[in-house]
Amino acid sequence: MRHDKLCLNYSALRKGVVYSDMRTLFWDDDLHELRMIDQRRLPASLELCALHSLVDVAEAIQNMTVRGAPAIGAAAAFGMALAANESRAHSVAQFLSDLDIAAYTLKTSRPTAVNLAWAVERVSQVIHAATGSLDDLRALVLAEAQRIATEDVAINKRMGEHGSLLIDDGDTILHHCNTGALAAVDWGTALGVIRMAHEQGKHVHVLVDETRPRLQGSRLTAWELGQYGIPYEIISDNMAGYFLRSGQVQKVLFGADRIAANGDVANKIGTYMLALAAHDNAVPVYSVAPTSSIDLSLANGTLISIEERDPEEVLGIQFHGERVVPEGAKARNPAFDVTPNHLITAIVTENGIIPPPFDVNLQKVFKGPN
Amino acid sequence: MRHDKLCLNYSALRKGVVYSDMRTLFWDDDLHELRMIDQRRLPASLELCALHSLVDVAEAIQNMTVRGAPAIGAAAAFGMALAANESRAHSVAQFLSDLDIAAYTLKTSRPTAVNLAWAVERVSQVIHAATGSLDDLRALVLAEAQRIATEDVAINKRMGEHGSLLIDDGDTILHHCNTGALAAVDWGTALGVIRMAHEQGKHVHVLVDETRPRLQGSRLTAWELGQYGIPYEIISDNMAGYFLRSGQVQKVLFGADRIAANGDVANKIGTYMLALAAHDNAVPVYSVAPTSSIDLSLANGTLISIEERDPEEVLGIQFHGERVVPEGAKARNPAFDVTPNHLITAIVTENGIIPPPFDVNLQKVFKGPN
Repeated sequence: MRHDKLCLNYSALRKGVVYSDMRTLFWDDDLHELRMIDQRRLPASLELCALHSLVDVAEAIQNMTVRGAPAIGAAAAFGMALAANESRAHSVAQFLSDLDIAAYTLKTSRPTAVNLAWAVERVSQVIHAATGSLDDLRALVLAEAQRIATEDVAINKRMGEHGSLLIDDGDTILHHCNTGALAAVDWGTALGVIRMAHEQGKHVHVLVDETRPRLQGSRLTAWELGQYGIPYEIISDNMAGYFLRSGQVQKVLFGADRIAANGDVANKIGTYMLALAAHDNAVPVYSVAPTSSIDLSLANGTLISIEERDPEEVLGIQFHGERVVPEGAKARNPAFDVTPNHLITAIVTENGIIPPPFDVNLQKVFKGPN
Repeated sequence: MRHDKLCLNYSALRKGVVYSDMRTLFWDDDLHELRMIDQRRLPASLELCALHSLVDVAEAIQNMTVRGAPAIGAAAAFGMALAANESRAHSVAQFLSDLDIAAYTLKTSRPTAVNLAWAVERVSQVIHAATGSLDDLRALVLAEAQRIATEDVAINKRMGEHGSLLIDDGDTILHHCNTGALAAVDWGTALGVIRMAHEQGKHVHVLVDETRPRLQGSRLTAWELGQYGIPYEIISDNMAGYFLRSGQVQKVLFGADRIAANGDVANKIGTYMLALAAHDNAVPVYSVAPTSSIDLSLANGTLISIEERDPEEVLGIQFHGERVVPEGAKARNPAFDVTPNHLITAIVTENGIIPPPFDVNLQKVFKGPN
């Protein structure tokens, strides 16, 4: 992957800055480049990548250097800024055409999370509506990307404040995938709720689904919880039912990659089985996501496109330095599934906690609270 | 572990013998020792261990050199034979006391699968009822262990014949853990059903749950299916819901470690969530197990003791030769869960296919068919 050579050990890059001071991704004004934490290297090492082009960004999204619906939205917005800088157009029309191609490239880099298309379209709309010189337009693209990133942090904190009302002192919370600061520009969605409750002084314990096959739980969520001083234990995804059925879990929290108009939630593979097990044991299930993850254009979850990734993500598992599967083994690797709306207790957004019926109430969040 | 030094590369041990000719475990009459396939080394290599003592057998059960409810039952029976050979008793009373201690040691080596206690008690009853010299009693113990092993193969084949009636040509079958020849003395339980259907000429495709944390699916079931020429694809356990919900699975099959009198099934961790997802999509769920896995002394599954194993089985996962979890991470590791009876379509035993109501019908299988 082209940009791998651009990934530097973070401590070498900027000494004395610690993780908590840093956004998952940010624009470097001096070097006109996008910096992001390489999430494939955590928790072994905290490394930053420097991205210089549209293709760098599309690749980083595809190979999951950056992942998490809000984070890839912001990354794509900065990808538009890099495409604007790269454009050799001499006319506004040619510039807009270059950016339309960039938008298409970014939107197709991963199909499921709607935040990607949302962020790219927001930037596109701004420049298609704007007037001025090419440099004016380039500045507008970057400013809009910056705005999306900054808004994302504020939105996450608002979700944390709303969602923390649902968390009780002493709760054990079962959490799927990674939805922390790393999944967003900063703070996080579902993990941001847990973090907010922790900062409010509530004692919480987190059961961390390891989240096969990419292990975002045992890699990233465990690492983040360690940074925040929140106690946790990792479980394999198939253990969730055991802990739910034995009454050891009070809440189930996860994010969302796309929420259909009826409240069906596409999220990381395994979410559906987790929600089923919670529902079977009357444990509340909360999906925490910004309104930019809601896609009112799709009536229900069966219409959401589910990415199928490289089988090697399943087959490459090792123990004691040795590959586990027999030679020639095949695998399937759908990266997301859809949880039907009746398994979701409420959806937490920056505009508040949305109860069912979702087909009615999701419409309302776009108009703000009543 | 003491007996690790006794594990030899199988090809070095007995050239020219292939896997399909071999039982998972067998008694060597010349050397008076128990031989078993080291299931921790598959599929990387096919190695045999030689076990010389009661402690060798208890350790092999504990560390999962041998696993699978029927296989550990037979292993424990041979463990009694080794204990009989080891006994330095000069009186029958002392001999029986030695074997009572051996029985206790073996029964406590793993708590969940009832076959272990069943096999040990069967041997105990034979010698407590017998008369004769110490050498006569030693011969009786070994003969009973041999009988248990040989019966197990026949029982598995009968389960295969009964269960194969449930399999249709063209079925895609979702399978959890390993229930093949390796989980028994030979042939297998749920995988034995699939194998029988395949030998009858039915075209089946198997979705293999990798079965975290020990990966018996992607290690052992995938390897066995490869040996039998049955097409398969590995999935991570949390993907089962996706394939069930999208209509790609016709049957769900697994074994059992202990079945309570009401039909609640204790089986490898993850079975409950799988059965829930199948039930939610009206896909039939079959537990395939010998009657020796049925424990009528327990009214329901909440009474079944669930083993919790070393967290390192969860934490030790690697990719690209590197450990995944952050330093100091903790984990939980329950090895089994209980699937409530209402999620089970039928239980396949050597005496036939048992439909609900299980509380009535499980009693009947001990009396044979009506």
